[in-house]
Amino acid sequence: MSPAPTPLGVAVVGHSFMGKAHSNAWRNVSAFYPDVPPVARRVLVGRDAARVGEAAHQFGWEETETDWRRVLERDDIQVVDVCTPGHLHYEIALAALEAGKHVLVEKPLSNSTSEAERLVEAAASARARGVQSMVGFNYRRVPALELARSFVAEGRIGAVREIRAAYLQDWLADDQAPMTWRLRREQAGSGVLGDLGSHVVDLLRFLTADDISWVEGHLATFVPTRPGADGPEQVTVDDAAWALLGLTGGAVASVEVSRMAFGRKNGLRLELYGSRGSLTFDLERLNELWVDTGDGGTRVLVTEPHHPYLDAWWPPGHVLGWDHTFTTQAAEFLHAIGTGTAPTPSFEDGLAVQQVLDAVERTAADRHETISAS
Amino acid sequence: MSPAPTPLGVAVVGHSFMGKAHSNAWRNVSAFYPDVPPVARRVLVGRDAARVGEAAHQFGWEETETDWRRVLERDDIQVVDVCTPGHLHYEIALAALEAGKHVLVEKPLSNSTSEAERLVEAAASARARGVQSMVGFNYRRVPALELARSFVAEGRIGAVREIRAAYLQDWLADDQAPMTWRLRREQAGSGVLGDLGSHVVDLLRFLTADDISWVEGHLATFVPTRPGADGPEQVTVDDAAWALLGLTGGAVASVEVSRMAFGRKNGLRLELYGSRGSLTFDLERLNELWVDTGDGGTRVLVTEPHHPYLDAWWPPGHVLGWDHTFTTQAAEFLHAIGTGTAPTPSFEDGLAVQQVLDAVERTAADRHETISAS
Amino acid sequence: MSPAPTPLGVAVVGHSFMGKAHSNAWRNVSAFYPDVPPVARRVLVGRDAARVGEAAHQFGWEETETDWRRVLERDDIQVVDVCTPGHLHYEIALAALEAGKHVLVEKPLSNSTSEAERLVEAAASARARGVQSMVGFNYRRVPALELARSFVAEGRIGAVREIRAAYLQDWLADDQAPMTWRLRREQAGSGVLGDLGSHVVDLLRFLTADDISWVEGHLATFVPTRPGADGPEQVTVDDAAWALLGLTGGAVASVEVSRMAFGRKNGLRLELYGSRGSLTFDLERLNELWVDTGDGGTRVLVTEPHHPYLDAWWPPGHVLGWDHTFTTQAAEFLHAIGTGTAPTPSFEDGLAVQQVLDAVERTAADRHETISAS
Amino acid sequence: MSPAPTPLGVAVVGHSFMGKAHSNAWRNVSAFYPDVPPVARRVLVGRDAARVGEAAHQFGWEETETDWRRVLERDDIQVVDVCTPGHLHYEIALAALEAGKHVLVEKPLSNSTSEAERLVEAAASARARGVQSMVGFNYRRVPALELARSFVAEGRIGAVREIRAAYLQDWLADDQAPMTWRLRREQAGSGVLGDLGSHVVDLLRFLTADDISWVEGHLATFVPTRPGADGPEQVTVDDAAWALLGLTGGAVASVEVSRMAFGRKNGLRLELYGSRGSLTFDLERLNELWVDTGDGGTRVLVTEPHHPYLDAWWPPGHVLGWDHTFTTQAAEFLHAIGTGTAPTPSFEDGLAVQQVLDAVERTAADRHETISAS
Repeated sequence: MSPAPTPLGVAVVGHSFMGKAHSNAWRNVSAFYPDVPPVARRVLVGRDAARVGEAAHQFGWEETETDWRRVLERDDIQVVDVCTPGHLHYEIALAALEAGKHVLVEKPLSNSTSEAERLVEAAASARARGVQSMVGFNYRRVPALELARSFVAEGRIGAVREIRAAYLQDWLADDQAPMTWRLRREQAGSGVLGDLGSHVVDLLRFLTADDISWVEGHLATFVPTRPGADGPEQVTVDDAAWALLGLTGGAVASVEVSRMAFGRKNGLRLELYGSRGSLTFDLERLNELWVDTGDGGTRVLVTEPHHPYLDAWWPPGHVLGWDHTFTTQAAEFLHAIGTGTAPTPSFEDGLAVQQVLDAVERTAADRHETISAS
Repeated sequence: MSPAPTPLGVAVVGHSFMGKAHSNAWRNVSAFYPDVPPVARRVLVGRDAARVGEAAHQFGWEETETDWRRVLERDDIQVVDVCTPGHLHYEIALAALEAGKHVLVEKPLSNSTSEAERLVEAAASARARGVQSMVGFNYRRVPALELARSFVAEGRIGAVREIRAAYLQDWLADDQAPMTWRLRREQAGSGVLGDLGSHVVDLLRFLTADDISWVEGHLATFVPTRPGADGPEQVTVDDAAWALLGLTGGAVASVEVSRMAFGRKNGLRLELYGSRGSLTFDLERLNELWVDTGDGGTRVLVTEPHHPYLDAWWPPGHVLGWDHTFTTQAAEFLHAIGTGTAPTPSFEDGLAVQQVLDAVERTAADRHETISAS
Repeated sequence: MSPAPTPLGVAVVGHSFMGKAHSNAWRNVSAFYPDVPPVARRVLVGRDAARVGEAAHQFGWEETETDWRRVLERDDIQVVDVCTPGHLHYEIALAALEAGKHVLVEKPLSNSTSEAERLVEAAASARARGVQSMVGFNYRRVPALELARSFVAEGRIGAVREIRAAYLQDWLADDQAPMTWRLRREQAGSGVLGDLGSHVVDLLRFLTADDISWVEGHLATFVPTRPGADGPEQVTVDDAAWALLGLTGGAVASVEVSRMAFGRKNGLRLELYGSRGSLTFDLERLNELWVDTGDGGTRVLVTEPHHPYLDAWWPPGHVLGWDHTFTTQAAEFLHAIGTGTAPTPSFEDGLAVQQVLDAVERTAADRHETISAS
Repeated sequence: MSPAPTPLGVAVVGHSFMGKAHSNAWRNVSAFYPDVPPVARRVLVGRDAARVGEAAHQFGWEETETDWRRVLERDDIQVVDVCTPGHLHYEIALAALEAGKHVLVEKPLSNSTSEAERLVEAAASARARGVQSMVGFNYRRVPALELARSFVAEGRIGAVREIRAAYLQDWLADDQAPMTWRLRREQAGSGVLGDLGSHVVDLLRFLTADDISWVEGHLATFVPTRPGADGPEQVTVDDAAWALLGLTGGAVASVEVSRMAFGRKNGLRLELYGSRGSLTFDLERLNELWVDTGDGGTRVLVTEPHHPYLDAWWPPGHVLGWDHTFTTQAAEFLHAIGTGTAPTPSFEDGLAVQQVLDAVERTAADRHETISAS
């Protein structure tokens, strides 16, 4: 028996919501995907030593660090996973690539197109040196969505003509919900458009293998001020966004994203209508895909061994949850590193999404035709 | 006991799909709504004597007529119900009003805004003489939708902010489906926009009691030619249409209508999101309304005696079908005639819908921003 | 053109819930099924002259009668439709058959097996004279259930092994709901077992074309007394009933019927599991059938022209309601009269159901094994 | 800062399906439930050294062992988790308790009532010495089911009257599915009754806090022989089982379990009808609970922070999967060990379930009333 290979040392930067989800992925990836390169959970990075120490203990990391730059200097770190707020992605990812680390960046790639373009250049240059990079659009790893992608690619629903896409949440539906940094443009970049819209645009490209060719957008802020620490404060981002998108393959996609949709908790809903069938998905029922190629619609419970990723998990009918997508994402990234192939979604994919979001914002300022009621 | 009142004589013009549905309504209205003025089913009108004779026998009419003008001359006809193709609505309805007949016109009111405006004038003038008129947007009589309207009016879901509306069918999804007059602009006026979009726009106004204040539209024809009698023939109307609409109350509505949505048979789907709750409806499950004012969504089976119109029908849990809406529509029209009040939806409502559809067509020609894929 | 055939004269006995439903059927049958023999709605029968007069006017009958015996003497009556409470079925149906009238009896055929046996004899004798008879198990005319029956007959789901059947309502769930005659054994015969259980047993036989070979039953009365006119009164029938049934084809069916199932309004739910597939139905979604012959389950919207009975009604996607089943039932009965063939469900079918219900009652008195909790 | 407490050493016996699921739980429990006593994943036990070595590497265990007895001798093992086939539970659990180890036993507790009784005695004796024991009925940790239990306990649905319970799978629906040890009585004890029926009976007791007072059962084997290694072999256990159960609180529960229910993958479905409301659950939609206390039924997406266990996991709307229940189960067991309180479900609960299953088997041999078809 040959000696066990040296594991890849991993550092995660950030330890709140996404840091917890990514930590879970690194902790479990080898148990479900035993063929990927082994990993050592070396360092969890956070600015506050006490808090990151507690998180590292809880999530199972060997060490902590308060300055991400020091992680880049270490020889026992090969993978840097960026889970910070979006405005820090650019600087950390760029430095990590230049330090020769494989880089996984949580979506969105960055807060501006110009930064995204610079990261794409850095990723291309790094790739030539065998250094891999990926954007964390985790919904590409939902088994039902990968199954949908494969059905589209195989022509099961024919030429895709219409896509109805929505990502609806309601945590801001209450107009007394307090002000947060997410509602300030200078910190958050945009509102729901960047947060949820980026997922939708990525999935449109993923599911169809098409690019976006034209855009018409609209934004709305339904609650202009919210209670702040010092009285009412102005909301400077969008509460809801709409876009009509043309795809290079000829399909038209309507997109609606909102944090004001009362009763929708994590309602990512996709309907694809093709010339020979249709597909329907709802993230609140993550294990199901509706496939219609004739009379009625078939509810496929995507928990069979032959379904995407499922042989890594449990017997038929044993449903997966939201967090499993991150474990699979980590496996895909490790597999790419191990085989020296470029993983997807790439930084180019991240840039393409950013360009579409920018176009939505620009066109949202257009004049619509006003009509006078009779 | 007083003598039975003289019944109102009814004439229906047209005896195909809508003629059958309206005949069914006139045949049954008194059995379920005994308090409305009684009716006599006098005349069914059609151009082909043999065919209209057969239809009249089947549907239970006393007589037939091949020229609708002669019906207007009869003193024993008080109600004219126009079920012809849309391009004939204008002439018949106008003449009937001028002859002093109460007029029910199937939707859409007419094929052009100018005609609709003229009909509105005629209706206003007739109304002053006690002659009533109504447009047949029958979905206003779906119990679940009337319940939805009342919930919005009562503030149960707070201020309406976002509406997602779609009316999706698939009878043209097959690109070998043959050419019909409905796909020629000169005969049909428009494609799915006028056919299904008119229902959606009317319901937006009905449910919110708001008008439309701005419009941004898009149209697509996915199958440009279809098999005709003499070889391939060009389709000159839209296969699918999209619109973003602003409502006077501040809500934004996204609308999508299509005859290409594989697997949707009669998929009129409405989602209303307000500041305090949401409502969801699907015509394929006509007896249900989803009401969400908190945790989860309640599926209300709209078959209880206290639900709109239900006391006229059956005990709890006994579901209604599509055709019952026409019977209720006839009852509402008769009730208005009997009490001398103006029924809704009025010709003004029909005109307002037509103005919005026109704006969708105009703005659909606008340039969208094209983006070059990365 | 040949002269119109003399219509069959119809008399309906009873004018409350079922009388209204059957009147609706006779009023509309020719409009949707033009090929059946024509009918004249001659007489509505009821004991109270004023009430039956009002009902006849509302439902569209030519005349009224307070004594059903006089109807049997009339030469212009060929069809007698018995919609009275169950304990009167026997006498009226027997006399009508002997008077040479075609007889439709609302379910259940009668309140006792001995009466049912006598009616079967009379029906057989009448049939030999060309006089037809039928029991009104209207759910056999639900398009989705006729489709299910045909799928079973064609072997689409293979050999049927397990059937899960329930018919759940909740109008007695409130223990303060008042006493009614339906809860007194001497008047109602039995409780929910006869009322809803009879439908379920008939459908088991209809869907499988099998008979019942063995029975094990259980009954419960959860609310033993209810508010009566003179204080608390004892409930002497069952609130809920269960049965395990063996079918001659080898399947095992579990049946549960209840009027105490909070939240179920008209919840007739059927699941058939075969060696190659399964079928699922819910009366609250009358237009849908779930068909599973592989991966997932297909929701068939049973509104296509090729589905059972649908070509008589509306275009694809236009849903039917509960009352349409009675119209189709009337058409089937008229068709049988016209062609001289015996209609189904026959009185023999009615007797078979009664025998099973009796066995449920008898076995419900058996001892179950009691166990002492650990 | 005080020194970290010495972790509890854990050994898992068994490394196939359940061993993988329990390993996952021990690996993650501290990350989501940081307040429970820390654990060290010391030993994975299996008979085949090579296979257990591979599994231990994959699932993250420090060491392996081929003889479970040696684990009991180690001072650094405080917790023994028995994941073997059922016929080994008794011997291992008994020895482990006597060795002073806390014991978690996968369900069912054992294959016979007499063994279960002996284990209950041993557990009671151990408990007096501060040694805890638990049975692994993991579905008690489904958030929606714990929520259901709390609703029943709070009286939200009033007095429970009827429970409809089914656990349906289809992996044996194909009559050419090959013979396995699970279909031989001498190895498996029983068929679906013990495998899935045990879950259902445990949940009935859990959800109502009642015991079972009477039982009436039925068993069926639809496919009597299956392809074995040496030709057709006889199936000696049940393919499907039914039971009607009386509960000490007065409710009646109908139970159906099957491995032949075509199209059901992991269909654990529960309906509880009470005097004031009803609850509905389906394991294939693990994150949802339907709650009906009035008009319609509310679909509660059980992913809010205030829902049971949810604050340990992710933000609202981020669904959990099947495996999360094992992690929570481990947390509950560790919490009990840490606080010195007896955890549930106890061995007494395991025995109570076994007694009911035995009664189902005994009464299944009773005569049912046969009826001759008319």
